[in-house]
Amino acid sequence: MQKRYLLAPGPTQIPPEVLLKMAEPILHHRNPMFEEIVAEVREDLKWLFGTKNEVLFFASSGTGAMEGAVTNMLSPNDKAIVVRSGKFGDRWANICKAYGIQTVEINVPWGDEIDPALVEKALKENPDTKAVYTHATETSTGVRYPVREIATIVKNYPNTICVIDGITGVGVFELPMDEWGIDILVAGSQKAFMLPPGLAFAGVSDKAWAMNKTSKMPRFYFNWTKELTNLQKNQTNFTPAISLIVGLRESLRMMKEEGLEKIYKRAEILARATREGAIALGLKPFAKNPSPAVTAIYAPEGIDGQAIYKSLWKKYGVTGAGGQDHLKGKIFRIATLGYADKYDVVTAMAALEFTLKDLGHKFKMGSGVGRALEVLQEL
Amino acid sequence: MQKRYLLAPGPTQIPPEVLLKMAEPILHHRNPMFEEIVAEVREDLKWLFGTKNEVLFFASSGTGAMEGAVTNMLSPNDKAIVVRSGKFGDRWANICKAYGIQTVEINVPWGDEIDPALVEKALKENPDTKAVYTHATETSTGVRYPVREIATIVKNYPNTICVIDGITGVGVFELPMDEWGIDILVAGSQKAFMLPPGLAFAGVSDKAWAMNKTSKMPRFYFNWTKELTNLQKNQTNFTPAISLIVGLRESLRMMKEEGLEKIYKRAEILARATREGAIALGLKPFAKNPSPAVTAIYAPEGIDGQAIYKSLWKKYGVTGAGGQDHLKGKIFRIATLGYADKYDVVTAMAALEFTLKDLGHKFKMGSGVGRALEVLQEL
Repeated sequence: MQKRYLLAPGPTQIPPEVLLKMAEPILHHRNPMFEEIVAEVREDLKWLFGTKNEVLFFASSGTGAMEGAVTNMLSPNDKAIVVRSGKFGDRWANICKAYGIQTVEINVPWGDEIDPALVEKALKENPDTKAVYTHATETSTGVRYPVREIATIVKNYPNTICVIDGITGVGVFELPMDEWGIDILVAGSQKAFMLPPGLAFAGVSDKAWAMNKTSKMPRFYFNWTKELTNLQKNQTNFTPAISLIVGLRESLRMMKEEGLEKIYKRAEILARATREGAIALGLKPFAKNPSPAVTAIYAPEGIDGQAIYKSLWKKYGVTGAGGQDHLKGKIFRIATLGYADKYDVVTAMAALEFTLKDLGHKFKMGSGVGRALEVLQEL
Repeated sequence: MQKRYLLAPGPTQIPPEVLLKMAEPILHHRNPMFEEIVAEVREDLKWLFGTKNEVLFFASSGTGAMEGAVTNMLSPNDKAIVVRSGKFGDRWANICKAYGIQTVEINVPWGDEIDPALVEKALKENPDTKAVYTHATETSTGVRYPVREIATIVKNYPNTICVIDGITGVGVFELPMDEWGIDILVAGSQKAFMLPPGLAFAGVSDKAWAMNKTSKMPRFYFNWTKELTNLQKNQTNFTPAISLIVGLRESLRMMKEEGLEKIYKRAEILARATREGAIALGLKPFAKNPSPAVTAIYAPEGIDGQAIYKSLWKKYGVTGAGGQDHLKGKIFRIATLGYADKYDVVTAMAALEFTLKDLGHKFKMGSGVGRALEVLQEL
């Protein structure tokens, strides 16, 4: 018998009531029963994204909405600024490259804080920039980006939009689109939405819709104007991921019942408890400005990060994540976004202590869990 | 109390055992437990598609794989032949248009048989054609296309690929890729796969992979070469629709247990029983060469097809489909693909009789069901 605990940065745990709702007989999408669900979801998504505009959704991974944020806005040879400080910064750059966009890259060492002044400088040097592509959390490093500051800078450039990959951010900490001036906010179902993967989201500002009018990039499946027209009739352009949308109504209802303030506070405390527990075990957090979504931790001297991740998963039933690309073996990650509570952190910390003892790391048993409990008391 | 019966041409009914499997706690996709599932699914998809090559899958609607069959094969200004005889023929044409492909259109009145000689003629007149895009079933009209004959013709053109939208076809009737020379066979999860929508498939021949090498179309989310490389490691390029893939393993196991011959025979008899029952009620089938997947039926003189579809759905609990575009009001459709058995046809026919009586059509009660039963006895 081995119970399994999922604390990866996506997919995340799904509440049983959402799983069971999705297991009901499927609805047909071209009828009023489904349209009622879409109508409710539209309103709740506006609430979650902090926008008066529609939030589009697509049957795809989050990357599909990232691609759409390039192909629905820019034209070939347009210029864009991309902040690269991890695997998903690379993704923005790669999407731009695939579609013939000239990119100005702001390269920051993985794990370091992002200085908004670098964006300001890049914009001054490249006043013809059409879009700034960056993140809420860089999932591969656990760094939280200064979204508000970046959005405030971009706001001053009337012909530039601020595009945030909020896949590991929306529903974890505040990212109010309209208030902060975020022009496109992308999200994915398998994170704080507490759903399986397969549904991507994009909130779109008036400034972005205006830019869309001049965009000359080929597109079909991710055609945002067609999606908007359909959404306004509580429909989708193509067959939607029906069961995920049915689940989405449930999970958004749960989020509304808890309230954004409590959700954000919970995520913040869970992540802090994870970091503090790790520090009490003699480990060092990796990210300079850590995100409440996912905590990246250095493997201690002489111990392989992949061995920690694998032992957590295989021997102790806790699925976290390892390091990606050049961080493989150097860090491991534990995520606390979405349907996670204080006991998930206690479990993860206990599994980490078992694992570190096995691997020969020296510390007093219970000191990680103990420190975590102190922080978790705030919840 | 109103029980609901789903007999639409997608989404289709989902077996309870598949729904419950998908309702289990979600797995993480970057680990051996998930990779084992992908390994099994890869083999079963090859069996279902009748190919030695890999069948790619994507987190998207079927249209995503249709788009990929253009963007991964052609280059801007390439020439393609498109058979247009319904809403989904329009879709191939619209995708080609969106990506700057010159299309040679074979326009056939909706509902008519497709003459393969028209494809032969178009190819002779346009020897520089890179691809022929057509369908297994045109879902909007219920017409079955002569796939084998078309594929045999295209086979003689070494620089032209034969691309079949098999969304309403794979798992309903035989479409053996390698034997018939189909170069790309597209499918979608919400049809004969007995799953929710959100997963698209594409089987790809060696001839198509060779053409892919010369394709110069921008693409990122639907990048087939990257997807292939990942699939060979039992992985996906981006976060996959995990729960659908878990469900897919179950539904493919069910299909293998029944066997393709029995599945195809069942679909053929269910559709025939639907047609014959409708004829016994004095109605006329719409499609000249009817598909076993979906049966389109003319509304009788003086009765609105939408009224039939709506009454079936609203008053009698049977979800079929209406007519699309200019066929709206003229026809209605009942689908019998996937998880449908003889009692589904009996139910649909009974609901149709109730509905037609309400709407004032003259016939002897029970004559439709009676005729259907005679046909269903063959099962």
